[in-house]
Amino acid sequence: MPAMPTAVRPSKIPHPEADAIELATVMRTVGDPLRLAIVRLLADGAEQSCAALQDRLGLPPSTGSYHLRLLREAGVTRTRPAGTQRYISLRRDDLDRRFPGLVDVLIRDER
Amino acid sequence: MPAMPTAVRPSKIPHPEADAIELATVMRTVGDPLRLAIVRLLADGAEQSCAALQDRLGLPPSTGSYHLRLLREAGVTRTRPAGTQRYISLRRDDLDRRFPGLVDVLIRDER
Repeated sequence: MPAMPTAVRPSKIPHPEADAIELATVMRTVGDPLRLAIVRLLADGAEQSCAALQDRLGLPPSTGSYHLRLLREAGVTRTRPAGTQRYISLRRDDLDRRFPGLVDVLIRDER
Repeated sequence: MPAMPTAVRPSKIPHPEADAIELATVMRTVGDPLRLAIVRLLADGAEQSCAALQDRLGLPPSTGSYHLRLLREAGVTRTRPAGTQRYISLRRDDLDRRFPGLVDVLIRDER
């Protein structure tokens, strides 16, 4: 089988539709201290570059990419490619509509 | 080593203190469709026997025990032994105090 030419590589990063986001999947995905920390870094709603997030958490790129992919696939975050960078944001509107109160629980300081 | 006599078997079932319950652990634990279903069966606050829960979910006892143990160890449920039965309840007060809004998110019908 010939190698797929780079030009036909899908340029879009897949995200689940808001209505396809599942509560158990979201819970399982944010039920990891590192991924919960990423959600909290995104709590103010601002986009952050993948590199900046990795830097703030002291993660090597491969580790950061892995956790950011899981968050994206679960519908927790959105990833926007721009040039050679990727920008990450919380899907707050979608999550608030599907699971009201969930994001507040996640980002609230524990006592 | 001699077998431990039955009489010194710990009669208490261990539960984490409310202040030791961790959000990421709770999230990870309820991030499973079956365990989320158990939480919802306990949503009205009433105690239910282990056997009744297993029956309502159509689970064999070994499967039910496993999931109920994970929920107890995470601090989500309380298990009270009575004779040969065990009664399960949601630790709603503890969870509401530690993570306000979380139980509401878990037990709300999804749209």
